[in-house]
Amino acid sequence: MGMVGGGRGAFIGQVHRMAANLDGKIELVAGAFSADPEKSRLSGEDFFLDPSRVYSSYQEMARAEAALPPEKRIDFVSIVVRNNLHFEVAKTFLEAGIHVICDKPVTFNLEQALQLRSIVTRTGLVFALTHNYTGYPMVKEARRMVRAGELGRLLKIVAEYPQGYAVGDVEGDGQGQIANWRSDPSVSGVSNCIGDIGTHAHNLIRYICGVEIESLCAELTAFIPGRQLDDDGNILVRFRGGAKGLIYASQISNGDENALSIRAYGTKASIEWHQEDPNDLLVKYANAPRRVYRRGNDYLGPEAKANSRTPFAHPEGFIEAFANIYVAAAGAIADRIEGRPAPAEGYDFPDIRDGIAGMAFIETAVRSSQSSDKWVPFPVV
Amino acid sequence: MGMVGGGRGAFIGQVHRMAANLDGKIELVAGAFSADPEKSRLSGEDFFLDPSRVYSSYQEMARAEAALPPEKRIDFVSIVVRNNLHFEVAKTFLEAGIHVICDKPVTFNLEQALQLRSIVTRTGLVFALTHNYTGYPMVKEARRMVRAGELGRLLKIVAEYPQGYAVGDVEGDGQGQIANWRSDPSVSGVSNCIGDIGTHAHNLIRYICGVEIESLCAELTAFIPGRQLDDDGNILVRFRGGAKGLIYASQISNGDENALSIRAYGTKASIEWHQEDPNDLLVKYANAPRRVYRRGNDYLGPEAKANSRTPFAHPEGFIEAFANIYVAAAGAIADRIEGRPAPAEGYDFPDIRDGIAGMAFIETAVRSSQSSDKWVPFPVV
Amino acid sequence: MGMVGGGRGAFIGQVHRMAANLDGKIELVAGAFSADPEKSRLSGEDFFLDPSRVYSSYQEMARAEAALPPEKRIDFVSIVVRNNLHFEVAKTFLEAGIHVICDKPVTFNLEQALQLRSIVTRTGLVFALTHNYTGYPMVKEARRMVRAGELGRLLKIVAEYPQGYAVGDVEGDGQGQIANWRSDPSVSGVSNCIGDIGTHAHNLIRYICGVEIESLCAELTAFIPGRQLDDDGNILVRFRGGAKGLIYASQISNGDENALSIRAYGTKASIEWHQEDPNDLLVKYANAPRRVYRRGNDYLGPEAKANSRTPFAHPEGFIEAFANIYVAAAGAIADRIEGRPAPAEGYDFPDIRDGIAGMAFIETAVRSSQSSDKWVPFPVV
Amino acid sequence: MGMVGGGRGAFIGQVHRMAANLDGKIELVAGAFSADPEKSRLSGEDFFLDPSRVYSSYQEMARAEAALPPEKRIDFVSIVVRNNLHFEVAKTFLEAGIHVICDKPVTFNLEQALQLRSIVTRTGLVFALTHNYTGYPMVKEARRMVRAGELGRLLKIVAEYPQGYAVGDVEGDGQGQIANWRSDPSVSGVSNCIGDIGTHAHNLIRYICGVEIESLCAELTAFIPGRQLDDDGNILVRFRGGAKGLIYASQISNGDENALSIRAYGTKASIEWHQEDPNDLLVKYANAPRRVYRRGNDYLGPEAKANSRTPFAHPEGFIEAFANIYVAAAGAIADRIEGRPAPAEGYDFPDIRDGIAGMAFIETAVRSSQSSDKWVPFPVV
Repeated sequence: MGMVGGGRGAFIGQVHRMAANLDGKIELVAGAFSADPEKSRLSGEDFFLDPSRVYSSYQEMARAEAALPPEKRIDFVSIVVRNNLHFEVAKTFLEAGIHVICDKPVTFNLEQALQLRSIVTRTGLVFALTHNYTGYPMVKEARRMVRAGELGRLLKIVAEYPQGYAVGDVEGDGQGQIANWRSDPSVSGVSNCIGDIGTHAHNLIRYICGVEIESLCAELTAFIPGRQLDDDGNILVRFRGGAKGLIYASQISNGDENALSIRAYGTKASIEWHQEDPNDLLVKYANAPRRVYRRGNDYLGPEAKANSRTPFAHPEGFIEAFANIYVAAAGAIADRIEGRPAPAEGYDFPDIRDGIAGMAFIETAVRSSQSSDKWVPFPVV
Repeated sequence: MGMVGGGRGAFIGQVHRMAANLDGKIELVAGAFSADPEKSRLSGEDFFLDPSRVYSSYQEMARAEAALPPEKRIDFVSIVVRNNLHFEVAKTFLEAGIHVICDKPVTFNLEQALQLRSIVTRTGLVFALTHNYTGYPMVKEARRMVRAGELGRLLKIVAEYPQGYAVGDVEGDGQGQIANWRSDPSVSGVSNCIGDIGTHAHNLIRYICGVEIESLCAELTAFIPGRQLDDDGNILVRFRGGAKGLIYASQISNGDENALSIRAYGTKASIEWHQEDPNDLLVKYANAPRRVYRRGNDYLGPEAKANSRTPFAHPEGFIEAFANIYVAAAGAIADRIEGRPAPAEGYDFPDIRDGIAGMAFIETAVRSSQSSDKWVPFPVV
Repeated sequence: MGMVGGGRGAFIGQVHRMAANLDGKIELVAGAFSADPEKSRLSGEDFFLDPSRVYSSYQEMARAEAALPPEKRIDFVSIVVRNNLHFEVAKTFLEAGIHVICDKPVTFNLEQALQLRSIVTRTGLVFALTHNYTGYPMVKEARRMVRAGELGRLLKIVAEYPQGYAVGDVEGDGQGQIANWRSDPSVSGVSNCIGDIGTHAHNLIRYICGVEIESLCAELTAFIPGRQLDDDGNILVRFRGGAKGLIYASQISNGDENALSIRAYGTKASIEWHQEDPNDLLVKYANAPRRVYRRGNDYLGPEAKANSRTPFAHPEGFIEAFANIYVAAAGAIADRIEGRPAPAEGYDFPDIRDGIAGMAFIETAVRSSQSSDKWVPFPVV
Repeated sequence: MGMVGGGRGAFIGQVHRMAANLDGKIELVAGAFSADPEKSRLSGEDFFLDPSRVYSSYQEMARAEAALPPEKRIDFVSIVVRNNLHFEVAKTFLEAGIHVICDKPVTFNLEQALQLRSIVTRTGLVFALTHNYTGYPMVKEARRMVRAGELGRLLKIVAEYPQGYAVGDVEGDGQGQIANWRSDPSVSGVSNCIGDIGTHAHNLIRYICGVEIESLCAELTAFIPGRQLDDDGNILVRFRGGAKGLIYASQISNGDENALSIRAYGTKASIEWHQEDPNDLLVKYANAPRRVYRRGNDYLGPEAKANSRTPFAHPEGFIEAFANIYVAAAGAIADRIEGRPAPAEGYDFPDIRDGIAGMAFIETAVRSSQSSDKWVPFPVV
């Protein structure tokens, strides 16, 4: 594989590389790791790359790699640049005939995402989006339960994602503000908190519960004085089909770390999953003991098993879940390269449809919050 | 004490009696336990009462007890009848010169609650309302922390109270519907779920955080076909002073039992408390280990200590918390009877002001949900 | 009821009174609360007793109460004095024809316990011992499961009871030593830690698992310099029937509070219960999701239900469990007084047999630890 | 690196490879994956190896690799064969001048371990042993606390490792017995349960607490009829310096999965860590709130930070801990290769000394259990 972005010191690029490395089947061989050619070069050394395949720009990289014979060129590129560049980089590689794994959010805005869908469709290439939390085995088990009807009809869904890292200088002395590109609208787009983590909560609902939003009513807030984008958002949601619920995300929930969770309540049973304790899945019943399903056990469904690497209670975590997205996307890419048809049940990784849904969620939430404090219908895209 | 309502088989009456019994300082000596005189008489036998003080109606009871010499008559009455009777019974006893401890919600509607406030003020008697969850020692510790500024300025507050007991026949065959007076508007008032348990979440916020709602945006739902009142409600909240948050309550969250919790996030620290695990209080910080404060320890504040009966890790529960409300109210009643002034810092039990705030919360939430899906200002009452 | 010991400021006497009060069916009417007649008198005032039934000594109390007509006299006495007096007080009341509820350990040594058994047998009176942890509803559910064979054949049992309260001056400056009669052999007998809390762990095993010890190998330690009795003990155990296990207790496990727990592993399933979280019972299987049984639910057995006072997730605790012992013992006493036969399945409260087993456990553990570091057979008593 | 053992389908070989892959700095380039040359060859294909470096035997591999020029040959070999072959394979590679990372237990018996120590000393090469649980960041934080004196003097240590996987056919029909080489003395040595997992508990104590056993008293059991080696063991322990404790391990604790834990109680504070929840470390105090230290936070010590790959609450697990051993050992190997001196504070990975201590633990426990049920002194080796 190749990589765009993710040079020395970049957190998410390092996560993508570990996820790709884990199973020993994907090898990083090329990259344009930084807009600064020297930084890109040094990063290439860190990763033991052939200097001739460490590029000064992603455009150069796409051109040069596409010119290599198929057995030499990268099979796909990982895009880990900032939000505002996702579209251009993805477009460039897709049009060069190279498959893409892209960090989320998919693009800067919904319009770009819709354009990107056209490009993906036109090129027929694989486009995977790393909504990594859907890679956890017990998330896949939860999805299996919902699909199998084990929860009955869903009535209520609550997904939350509180973090506290951005509370730092909330009192507003202006000195300590997190110099985070995430709060810069020209980089992040119309939302920070909802865009960065609210979309994960939204995607998790879609993945597990298989439902889409019908309308929503949002209250987004920037608690930090001077911050231009939201650092907290609470959203009432009506789902198509009759379920209702809540999605909320926060970066000013002091002391919370990465507390993504989902609770889905059905007429027969309910599930509860917490990202900070990802190997367990709690299932609750009206009049039966609660059950704790634990990763690695024989009683789980095939999806959870296929996405596990170690026996029960040898905890797996964030990197392994991330790697599951890579494995699934790489499997699809291998199918394309080797001319195999897609499996009947489809592939199990987030793709451009998830990206579009996410951008629609961001824009609808911002619209609801800004314009009139009302319920806003969710676009059909 | 005397009791109105709470005859054989009534759950909440039994809780009130256990709460009153626990410390051996309050004795049940009179009652009108049922609108059915025979049932009242039999209940009196169950409780080993003198038959001459088991009455056929609360009116008779108020009259007869008020006519007894002070050292013989009941010091106060516990009112555990249905919501729609609270006002009349409370009024009757207060006007007969007898102190009152009343189950919540305080009255059938806000207007009655305001009238009751006038009567309480006029008579100068004690009126206590059993918002029992504020009786837990660790709730009192949380309140102490907020008051002492240990959390800094509050930014976000999330209080939830999901239950699942009413999901029973959600598919609507009409046979199994819980024959519950709570879903009958002529008994419960304008709300079931928000009125019954949402008010507890609201009261818990007010007690711990000392904040009042400025405006709210609610979505109440009756998921059970044919049910006239809400069995689920999700509410966005803006608090006076700038904090924001969520209050939600549900009776159709299948498999949840009595999962009241509160999370309050401040600029310095945050607290989290769960009613199902009431002896612990979790405190979270931006960059310090989380702390678990546990009931019964020397390091706690005086309020938590004064409201504990056993050493650490000898778990205390619901009845003990309920008893703490009784102890505090009985202390105020004893002060009045014996002519002692109230303590400078006031009494620590819910009173008519809590009742009014609760009725305002119910009515505002219903108004927001029904009329126009908008933000509705919270009345100043 | 009457009470011997438990005057002002005594913890365990207060617990016994709350346990007796809770359900409004037992009334404290007489007592000899202290060896100091003045302290006894003042305690009687605290409890609103008729001064004529507050006695200066337990001997006087037994005599005077026995002389009252049956409908006036106490139905039973609660004994909450120090260990070394249990035998004499119990003997005195039993011989006066008065039923007894006695705090544990039953007597000062095994020999006294055997004598007491003779007296109980001879008098035909009720003798209940407050091994209170067996009063928890979920302990009763665990017992039901074992009896019903739901765990299969038991292979291994681990019961532990770590506390940390006595670590205080472990470095031995001699100043801060807990001036605790428990470490005085003339009051406590041959053991402190094993006698005080190890016996609870032992009793819990016997109650839930229905097994007796065949032999044991103990290591008792006094970590505090100058302390005469053990403050920590670790014991390897072989049970009759082939199971093996561990019992350990500690008072120097710094920061542990009251962490009694039991894990029993069977060929079909295993159970795990923690006193600090008493409303839950965890059941584990070889290849099925873990189950969490929770107090107050309909799916529980009749014993757990009969010993609950509130609905699910309205937490019950230590006092309620203690009260369950009182209720069961008082039921047996009422049967005797009113001439009803015992139920076919027997009564469900700890009695003199539990007392004897406990004293045998203490003496065997001490013998194993002191003499030769070997396995010592458990006496058949 | 090269690998001996760990062909297709072998669990632990796969774990070693993932651990080596994770950070993209170690590459598997050679191997003798099975005693069956064809299976070795096919495994080599699975791992994308150059066929010329996939060997039919470890002897051939050591010879051939040693003959390559230094920049071509493997830097070290991972040994993941069965226990009884560890010694011969390790000896062969060390004597061929190749560094070794070896799965535990280090050898078949203590005598071999002592011989191996001589070889390691003589060759001056790196020998690392994958006691992988010491790779967890919060285990390193616990060790830092003990070393810094934050716990005071240690009084009691309890380490346990219950599993249930071997309970399968405990009723002894002989059909379902786990065909596990672990229960074969000719492969595993004198112990199964204590050797396989008891040693992990022992190693964890040594690593965190820095203490050695003075004497022990063990009870090992084979619960499965016909099983030749222990599947359960409970051990009383006296540590040098005065602490006491318990080590127990079990494979018949039905429903337990991989429940390694340690509790160490000191005069100032105590720590508690559970492998199934590895990102948290609980610290308990006599009179202060409990603290939960969580991986990934700034407040942790440098060791915990250096061994983390993701921010707080992005859970890390078993593979990451395992990888930390690889990283540390590979760092030492790089130092040797590049002629750098060892750091002043030494390296942080388990080595031959841990191997010897482990073998001494196994043999002492078996001796105590078999001979005379007595306390046996721990050898000084």
